[in-house]
Amino acid sequence: MLKINEDRLWGRLMEIAKIGATPKGGVCRVTLTEEDKAGRLLFMNWCQEIGCSIRTDAIGNIFARFQGGAKPGSKAIIIGSHLDSQPTGGKYDGVMGVIAGLELCHTLYENNVPLKYPIEIVSWTNEEGARFDPAMMGSAVFSGQMNLEEAYAKEDKKGVSVKDALHQIEARGNDQVSVQEFIASLEFHIEQGPVLEKTETTIGVVTGVQGIRWYDVKISGKECHAGPTPMSYRVDPVQQLPPLLQSIYGLCDAHGEESKVTIGYLDCAPGVKNTVPGEILVSVDLRHPDEEVLTQMHKDLHALVKAQNDSYQGQIEVKDVWHSPVVKFNQQCIDAISEAVTDLGISHCKMVSGAGHDSVNLSKVIPTSMVFIPCKDGLSHNELESAKKEHVSAGANVLLQAALRLQKT
Amino acid sequence: MLKINEDRLWGRLMEIAKIGATPKGGVCRVTLTEEDKAGRLLFMNWCQEIGCSIRTDAIGNIFARFQGGAKPGSKAIIIGSHLDSQPTGGKYDGVMGVIAGLELCHTLYENNVPLKYPIEIVSWTNEEGARFDPAMMGSAVFSGQMNLEEAYAKEDKKGVSVKDALHQIEARGNDQVSVQEFIASLEFHIEQGPVLEKTETTIGVVTGVQGIRWYDVKISGKECHAGPTPMSYRVDPVQQLPPLLQSIYGLCDAHGEESKVTIGYLDCAPGVKNTVPGEILVSVDLRHPDEEVLTQMHKDLHALVKAQNDSYQGQIEVKDVWHSPVVKFNQQCIDAISEAVTDLGISHCKMVSGAGHDSVNLSKVIPTSMVFIPCKDGLSHNELESAKKEHVSAGANVLLQAALRLQKT
Repeated sequence: MLKINEDRLWGRLMEIAKIGATPKGGVCRVTLTEEDKAGRLLFMNWCQEIGCSIRTDAIGNIFARFQGGAKPGSKAIIIGSHLDSQPTGGKYDGVMGVIAGLELCHTLYENNVPLKYPIEIVSWTNEEGARFDPAMMGSAVFSGQMNLEEAYAKEDKKGVSVKDALHQIEARGNDQVSVQEFIASLEFHIEQGPVLEKTETTIGVVTGVQGIRWYDVKISGKECHAGPTPMSYRVDPVQQLPPLLQSIYGLCDAHGEESKVTIGYLDCAPGVKNTVPGEILVSVDLRHPDEEVLTQMHKDLHALVKAQNDSYQGQIEVKDVWHSPVVKFNQQCIDAISEAVTDLGISHCKMVSGAGHDSVNLSKVIPTSMVFIPCKDGLSHNELESAKKEHVSAGANVLLQAALRLQKT
Repeated sequence: MLKINEDRLWGRLMEIAKIGATPKGGVCRVTLTEEDKAGRLLFMNWCQEIGCSIRTDAIGNIFARFQGGAKPGSKAIIIGSHLDSQPTGGKYDGVMGVIAGLELCHTLYENNVPLKYPIEIVSWTNEEGARFDPAMMGSAVFSGQMNLEEAYAKEDKKGVSVKDALHQIEARGNDQVSVQEFIASLEFHIEQGPVLEKTETTIGVVTGVQGIRWYDVKISGKECHAGPTPMSYRVDPVQQLPPLLQSIYGLCDAHGEESKVTIGYLDCAPGVKNTVPGEILVSVDLRHPDEEVLTQMHKDLHALVKAQNDSYQGQIEVKDVWHSPVVKFNQQCIDAISEAVTDLGISHCKMVSGAGHDSVNLSKVIPTSMVFIPCKDGLSHNELESAKKEHVSAGANVLLQAALRLQKT
């Protein structure tokens, strides 16, 4: 069975990690900076060495076409991810998926494998959203979910717009690339969570992305001085927290182990030791891979807040902040990956992604799926982010075999 | 009988309330800020108008001496409170006691009343403790209960030290002021509780202060991404809050209706919606008028934190921050106030203060008592804090008569 070159893949991953390398072993290659430019140029040089023709679109997405002898005008398969990183990011998040796409083409090139569908190695602009909101910008523009001019107008904290930043590093292209050109999209990424490592599984076949709902809960009470106010006179919002938090975490018991509840932000005002707070703000993040269950969790949250509010002298309110519905990836792509893993005899499981990826945008317009490998301690967006060489090459081999299977469709 | 000028007193109170005025009618004049500086300057100007000589000590306490014809070197009577406020404080807490001291001297000045013991109108630095721990810092340093260098080193949340903050607003003085100079101290304050209002009593003659203990509780967990981390893998400090808060509030059930528990500060880090926090900080304020009971509450708090820590994968720690034991005020000062109220024919009762005051520190080294008046709904540390003009002037008249009685000792 055809295999990728493990040392070449790892070597390139370590070489590109030198651009923007941080003292703790991570990478700072924030989108549309000089470091990002250097990474883009190195990647494009490597692609040109195997005869790829390169296009760049107006938002700076890079498309490196490996034709592989396919007829001109043939539809292609996208394989890629993103080259940009968090300010204190790791050596794998994003870039591994791009370099693995290149490695797969390099293997096809060396072995003169004839292709029916060319491979388009892609790097999407500003996946991280660390400098410009929102994250996944390049794939959003490409897939028609964000207007180009709207994306251009976004500014970083220094007031530099995306449009200006694209010009500054000469990353803005003129090529028109259409979603119509593609029959499938595969993305290879570290899991960014602990499940594969804990279960000693090499490959996660990603069937979709869990749905997310965000809320702001506000508990209002009556601010007063801690000293002279007897307990029976108080309308203390902090005393509402224990039953409220218990009910919110209780959504997990009610909706099974795939449900997730996170309270990441808690603040009380005015926030001084000797004053009963007048107000508490609590963020709630609900996630579930099944949209129907997520909808039920949503209704339950509103109901439990209402119930507690009804028996409280103050006020408890919940405000819907954001909703990212469940994403189901394409069955044919999932099957191609599953069969590839089975053929390769690698341990694997099906899973949903907990985090967002460019594939979420692509899945709206192109048949899509993803391949995950473990990362150490589930850490990502962290300079200590780490993945094993054998896992990286296993993932690239899965990509290669899945791409070859898709040739037969 | 000599009376203060009600309109002048009220007018000054309303004028100084313009400094740091908040939209809801309160005041934000946090210690050692530009607003605090403006309040200090206005107060000192007023004092100079009636011939006071002003001293400032190394911690920024202001001493405005009204000599009233007394012999040089005569011992003096301290009358004052503090000019700083909570971030969302009211127009009366602290500042009323300072401005009433000024008004009393203004009345003596206008009427050429000869004094045996001069009046020292005082404003203590950082009574509130809203920016720098601990509260009542200025009077603690003055009375020798806190080392000056220790106070200087205290930092606010931005890392600014007390020493630097004193310099920034030019509030650090060089005058040596000794506790030996004083024979008595009187402080006039709003009750900051609901008792006087509910019982329709104008004056509270304060016989002492309940004991207070402060704590910082830290719950440590494991920071992780909300998306890919299953609930069963998490070490989530927020999930520890419901049982912990319930146990802490449970101290009130165990120790009777005179016990008070306040959780005024709650914060989690890093504090973003899609990250399970790595750490939560919780402040605890325990109060009781009986020192023995307060000691038992203290022991119970440590025991309940230890018990929960023992059954938690992360760590819960409690740190003792401050202890202000139960205080008994001076009988001669209490009598002077009681007799003044009786002479004036105003309704009154004896009571214990629920809040800490600079008088707690002063009472350790100088014979001390306090005068309370009602505030609307018992509200304090609140922009809606309110007191009636006739109550304010009644309290100031009580101060005046008590000070005149003390002249005869």
